[in-house]
Amino acid sequence: MLELIEQKKTKKTDAAEELSSMRAQLIDIANAAKSAKLPVIITFDGWAAAGKGSQIAKLIKYMDPRFYNVEPIRKPNEPEKRKPWMHRYWLKLPAGGEFLILDGSWYSDIVKSYMNGDIDKEEYKRRIADINVFERQLHDDGYLIIKLFLHITQGEQRKRLKALYEDKFTRWRVDEQDFINNKRYDKIFRRYDKTISRTNTASAPWNIIPANDRVTAELEIMRAVTSSITGACDAKAKGKPYKMPAQFPITDIEPLKFDLVRTVKLAKTDMNKELTDEEYRTALDKYQSRLFELQNLCYQRKIPVIVAYEGWDAGGKGGNIKRVASALDPRGYEVKPIAAPEPSELARHYLWRFWKRLENDGHFTIFDRTWYGRVMVEPIEKITPQARADMAYREINEFEYQLNEWGAVVIKFWINIDKDEQYRRFKERENTPSKQWKITDEDWRNREKWDEYEKAVDRMIKLTSTDFAPWTVIEGNDKKYARIKALKTICDRLEERLKDD
Amino acid sequence: MLELIEQKKTKKTDAAEELSSMRAQLIDIANAAKSAKLPVIITFDGWAAAGKGSQIAKLIKYMDPRFYNVEPIRKPNEPEKRKPWMHRYWLKLPAGGEFLILDGSWYSDIVKSYMNGDIDKEEYKRRIADINVFERQLHDDGYLIIKLFLHITQGEQRKRLKALYEDKFTRWRVDEQDFINNKRYDKIFRRYDKTISRTNTASAPWNIIPANDRVTAELEIMRAVTSSITGACDAKAKGKPYKMPAQFPITDIEPLKFDLVRTVKLAKTDMNKELTDEEYRTALDKYQSRLFELQNLCYQRKIPVIVAYEGWDAGGKGGNIKRVASALDPRGYEVKPIAAPEPSELARHYLWRFWKRLENDGHFTIFDRTWYGRVMVEPIEKITPQARADMAYREINEFEYQLNEWGAVVIKFWINIDKDEQYRRFKERENTPSKQWKITDEDWRNREKWDEYEKAVDRMIKLTSTDFAPWTVIEGNDKKYARIKALKTICDRLEERLKDD
Repeated sequence: MLELIEQKKTKKTDAAEELSSMRAQLIDIANAAKSAKLPVIITFDGWAAAGKGSQIAKLIKYMDPRFYNVEPIRKPNEPEKRKPWMHRYWLKLPAGGEFLILDGSWYSDIVKSYMNGDIDKEEYKRRIADINVFERQLHDDGYLIIKLFLHITQGEQRKRLKALYEDKFTRWRVDEQDFINNKRYDKIFRRYDKTISRTNTASAPWNIIPANDRVTAELEIMRAVTSSITGACDAKAKGKPYKMPAQFPITDIEPLKFDLVRTVKLAKTDMNKELTDEEYRTALDKYQSRLFELQNLCYQRKIPVIVAYEGWDAGGKGGNIKRVASALDPRGYEVKPIAAPEPSELARHYLWRFWKRLENDGHFTIFDRTWYGRVMVEPIEKITPQARADMAYREINEFEYQLNEWGAVVIKFWINIDKDEQYRRFKERENTPSKQWKITDEDWRNREKWDEYEKAVDRMIKLTSTDFAPWTVIEGNDKKYARIKALKTICDRLEERLKDD
Repeated sequence: MLELIEQKKTKKTDAAEELSSMRAQLIDIANAAKSAKLPVIITFDGWAAAGKGSQIAKLIKYMDPRFYNVEPIRKPNEPEKRKPWMHRYWLKLPAGGEFLILDGSWYSDIVKSYMNGDIDKEEYKRRIADINVFERQLHDDGYLIIKLFLHITQGEQRKRLKALYEDKFTRWRVDEQDFINNKRYDKIFRRYDKTISRTNTASAPWNIIPANDRVTAELEIMRAVTSSITGACDAKAKGKPYKMPAQFPITDIEPLKFDLVRTVKLAKTDMNKELTDEEYRTALDKYQSRLFELQNLCYQRKIPVIVAYEGWDAGGKGGNIKRVASALDPRGYEVKPIAAPEPSELARHYLWRFWKRLENDGHFTIFDRTWYGRVMVEPIEKITPQARADMAYREINEFEYQLNEWGAVVIKFWINIDKDEQYRRFKERENTPSKQWKITDEDWRNREKWDEYEKAVDRMIKLTSTDFAPWTVIEGNDKKYARIKALKTICDRLEERLKDD
């Protein structure tokens, strides 16, 4: 698409009126976005010396600095390398009403990594798919993503690099690599062009900005920004999703296809499984020592391990997690209890709070309740409309796929007990002073919706048991059996993963 | 003090009963801490091969893994080096009811840094002072800090290091440096000993654990942990501060003394200062370009800049910040609007949310409202008892001192307007549709307490105008004058700082 871009020249005087009207408008628009709680991401990519920095400065000059954050994207640092590659972008997500402005983005990130040989073609392609997923997920959640590519020609770039180099105040901004890259402009051109056309989606179409002339560039950037924020605010006011007009025909993205494994309904679970004390103690010893060794190997090979616990109230999650945790070197895991989201979490994409809780590679992250609240408690308790919750099956599969791609072993447990057993445990909690804090009216209320929950859980297990992140239903009426099954499942999954390495 | 520690041998059978009773107790104690929302920090320091890791494992074996987090403390990584040295410890603070267990702590951090020659004696001493401030601030806020030092003799250490080295499964855990350090045991002994005696404070006294014998060590650790958590919960139930019994005579800490600069009361401010449009435009140009250059120098020399804005409602903070921000390279600053704290913030020391908002060295962090809410709005609105708020003057001076020590330039503005001017601006906001969102009933309510606020502000300015972080009262009736004064003050402070370098 880049070859279709025509470099234009705009006289300052011709642009003056439109620019000053758009600048005035921008202040109101930013206020409107603030009131509408619209989260906005503006990415600036483009050639070295294309003027990203100064165009960003021109854009924000008319905005309230409390509403935006400008972040330069450089090479990932050491801690960032120990997380999924998109983790750092997730962390930066703006809240509703805020602007995130990126100088460089996931695009310059992957193009540079690929051109430098840091990632191979396969990885580059996987990352393109990750980006499309990321942008679609954000768009579906009401984010406005304005992607700008500042395009200059090879001759213009050479001229600018030379000028920067010849001025002693700006010399530090260019290095030898910039001149080398200018010589291989054609090759980089093709890579940018492919990247842009593969990501010119309906969720986040590209704005290619002819930037040989600075006034033209400013004009086009301001037009793109003001019109799309206005459009998104209007759409939001009408309760409709916003479709940004596309400069070029948009690219249809084939959704990632996931292979689902066969599952059975909770009602078919054999709830009579149990272990004797003797069997339990022997097995506990065996699997705990095995798990400890496996953790060591995962640590050395930097394999991340994600263990997700869901289950009925009083299902025994706490005690189960304890048996797993006590097998592990405590410096290598963290348990994340998931309670109701905080205001800063509610103001962002619902997966944000799980992304930000991920531990480093080589470590275990154990979730006590998870992102699956989205498809269980949230629609049942009318916190999230059913239609919105239904979109989460796909989003969750994508999320877990990206964890898997990062190298993680994703292990998911549903701890199942039957209704009678739950009643027995609730009563026991009520009658044991030291356990009374564990039982609330809410637990009893949830119990009344047992059938509704069971239906939701069956559906969830069916739709999110991918081959890379299958559910394990744990028969939990006997806590001893349940603990051993969890430990054994984790050991088996890790062994399987370590074999592949 | 270390020389007073007697290594004992305890037979497993003799300890069995007490240990198993304490373990059972620990479960209840952890639950009690959870209900009492008591935040607990347990630090494990001591000699290499003293058994920190295995003692931590023994301790947490009986605790619910959802309530604690074990963190190893290693050398700071690159992003951590760009923050104050204690920043990473602040970030890790547990919430009320949580346990933070550290394998190594700020103690091993400074002793190792000093012994390796990474920091000199002056810096080591400053850090001792920082630690005492940190622990006192946390203690005063209701944190329980249990500091354990696992002490083994030189001979025992040599034996253990050899054993670890000779086993191929554990060889990786020891390196040459460990053996070198064993040879210079005496020197390290003296450093640990001095460190311990200088930080054996009433807020956080030391527990020195004789660790040649593992059973003795476990017993002593369990005693220290169970008794102090019980004591702290009991004290909290009675609404009293907890004083941990000290193993050795405690060290009195000389409070940091700060030189205060002379200040004047708000009532004495000359509110007639103003600039013509002409004067304003000329000065704006001048100081904005100067600020841009100074930012560049600060960036190159990695000088952090903290700008704190406080002022009357409708004082013009937003527009003032905008003039500062628009002079800066947007990649080098961030504006942090401070609103009401979130639940996770309320559950921790109130300075936590400001520590975690600090940008890297070389960057500007601009706070729109600040930690001074603690001594203004919080006591006036009865969010914090006056007595508790009064402690904040010292805490805030210490906080700013630590920022200054990090190398930061700390600039604080009170934007002052008079009561008539505020009335005029409130009315104007009410009558201008695009500004109506800026005025709420709360603003009118606060206005009724003008005198109370003025008294609090006078006191705040008087008590926290240190020579390293003085307040600048800005005459704000004329917005133009106010903006130029802020810009000029920032420029002057930066120039002064850059001269020193």
